[in-house]
Amino acid sequence: MVEIECLLNIKKDGQNYLNPAKIILLQKIARLGSLRSAAKEMEISYQHAWNMIDEMNRLAPEPLVIKQRGGTTGGGASVSSYGSKILNEYSIIKQQLDKTINQIKVEIGM
Amino acid sequence: MVEIECLLNIKKDGQNYLNPAKIILLQKIARLGSLRSAAKEMEISYQHAWNMIDEMNRLAPEPLVIKQRGGTTGGGASVSSYGSKILNEYSIIKQQLDKTINQIKVEIGM
Repeated sequence: MVEIECLLNIKKDGQNYLNPAKIILLQKIARLGSLRSAAKEMEISYQHAWNMIDEMNRLAPEPLVIKQRGGTTGGGASVSSYGSKILNEYSIIKQQLDKTINQIKVEIGM
Repeated sequence: MVEIECLLNIKKDGQNYLNPAKIILLQKIARLGSLRSAAKEMEISYQHAWNMIDEMNRLAPEPLVIKQRGGTTGGGASVSSYGSKILNEYSIIKQQLDKTINQIKVEIGM
């Protein structure tokens, strides 16, 4: 069985802004409310996860993720409303590409 | 400036069959007639290049690359007519996805 897969990357001013791993990380932060828990679920280091977030936040006009330092729970992280908007736009683009891919499958057999 | 990029991977029976690096390698072999020269241009080892070719050849009904061993030039490699067909099909799929991407750019601003 042949499967066509499109890894969607979005660049901003030539720099890597969004990619599938970053999107999964954002989704996990939104669900778990914690960068540490999200990194753990992705089996990546906290530092690596933070670098991914930092890269996005620096390129965006507003931060996609907001860190809450300190507090009784040792701090958490949340996806901003701007971040949610970006997640939604990425998902719309992905859906349109997947729609094109589904049409291609019918036309081309390898 | 926002650029949307789709890295096109094609899987066969759940295994990685084609990806952008393999396509570039095939194109270079077709142009240079040598796996060694193609690997050198891609700045990857001969072994790595051969592993990529071997992975494709094993998954395909016919080999995409044919190695010519020995001879005065120390052996060469060529892309088979089946390989050329696959290159062409990959390019058609890529073009269709790029067409979709160009339409998306107009609709969505990040």
